[in-house]
Amino acid sequence: MRFTTRTSADGVTERSFTFGEIPGVLWTPDGAEPGALVLIGHGGGQHKLAPGVTARAVRLAAECGFAAAAIDAPAHGGRPKSAEHERVITEMRERMAGAGDPLPLLAELHTLLAAQTVPEWRSVLDALGDLGPVGYWGMSLGCALGIPLVAAEPRVRAAVLGLSGTSLASAEAAARVTVPVQFLVQWDDERVPRADALALFDALASGDKTLHANPGKHEDVPAFEADDAVRFFTRHLA
Amino acid sequence: MRFTTRTSADGVTERSFTFGEIPGVLWTPDGAEPGALVLIGHGGGQHKLAPGVTARAVRLAAECGFAAAAIDAPAHGGRPKSAEHERVITEMRERMAGAGDPLPLLAELHTLLAAQTVPEWRSVLDALGDLGPVGYWGMSLGCALGIPLVAAEPRVRAAVLGLSGTSLASAEAAARVTVPVQFLVQWDDERVPRADALALFDALASGDKTLHANPGKHEDVPAFEADDAVRFFTRHLA
Repeated sequence: MRFTTRTSADGVTERSFTFGEIPGVLWTPDGAEPGALVLIGHGGGQHKLAPGVTARAVRLAAECGFAAAAIDAPAHGGRPKSAEHERVITEMRERMAGAGDPLPLLAELHTLLAAQTVPEWRSVLDALGDLGPVGYWGMSLGCALGIPLVAAEPRVRAAVLGLSGTSLASAEAAARVTVPVQFLVQWDDERVPRADALALFDALASGDKTLHANPGKHEDVPAFEADDAVRFFTRHLA
Repeated sequence: MRFTTRTSADGVTERSFTFGEIPGVLWTPDGAEPGALVLIGHGGGQHKLAPGVTARAVRLAAECGFAAAAIDAPAHGGRPKSAEHERVITEMRERMAGAGDPLPLLAELHTLLAAQTVPEWRSVLDALGDLGPVGYWGMSLGCALGIPLVAAEPRVRAAVLGLSGTSLASAEAAARVTVPVQFLVQWDDERVPRADALALFDALASGDKTLHANPGKHEDVPAFEADDAVRFFTRHLA
């Protein structure tokens, strides 16, 4: 793991790194060992330094004294797209522009990316070393890639997931998730059918799981859910 | 309104009252004007001093500096059952003991009780005078009776409801509820069909409404939801 840039502000240090081909960022609270580490999975078309990722990471570091880490998913941020990525993305865009249903192709893309990103996250976690109990936060693409990660990685002890459904994420992987989960649904999500979102929550094997549903579209998650996520991680990781 | 007994403990004063035929309890924080008033609707077969009601009221007074009030619903606590109450309750018990579906009779009972308790709550609210912004908390029967109350009473500014569904509470009244609502669903509720609970949340006209669903049966609501309800009332009433 090679750290490149380093900046500090408001008690939080942000360090960019590369690990093999994977570009990532680590946020840590200044002046204290982190009490926990939260992995943040960005949304589709976003990257490790998307504003929502950075804001969440800084808050977890400043308010909770946690470290946070984000990496670019394959085919996202500065990472190259394979021929297979290109094919699926092109077909998906054609369907979105035309009359076809892009959902099955988006699901195919998520499956493709999940197969790559799960081992990547696990090796990044190895390289970061012990920064305390591990949590995972991911919405939308970050949920679809997070579910197989949380299912596979025993170091992850709690997860905030959501804005995805069984048409886009693996219900089979969800059935292997047993850690506490807070799961967000947007009641009027124009990208995720409501029944699929509820079915994905249903599929999670966790005994301790809470569904939070709010009115509005995919990107209208109310601000108070960010507070609830902070409280959830504090309760389970601190 | 005639106050009868008065006891104080841990910074909270509890006063029993009767208002006409309605027995009630008022909790207030000691040494300060209440910042708000939360009406608490008890569950089916319970009463104004059921442990869950008292615990919630004491917490709202001690932690938030709010007043809280509870009254016995008609046919509950010390209140007489009318011939019609008796008929419906007897038929319902017969169905519960046999093979029939008791849900339609429970719904009939809720409709009967709602018609009585809504004007009762409103006149109690008049008699209590201004104790600040008003909230309503009620699960199960307390939700079925609370929805028409919240729909009818403009002084109620926020409500925590749940453990009911369209088979037991009025979706028509829910469609007239416009204040912020936190709505609880037990994912494996043995008394409220899941689809009916989700449909009741869906029917609420509130732009600011959040569904919290947790695994488990009707009475298995996790303790952290009590914290969330306190935060919700603080956010909307304080």
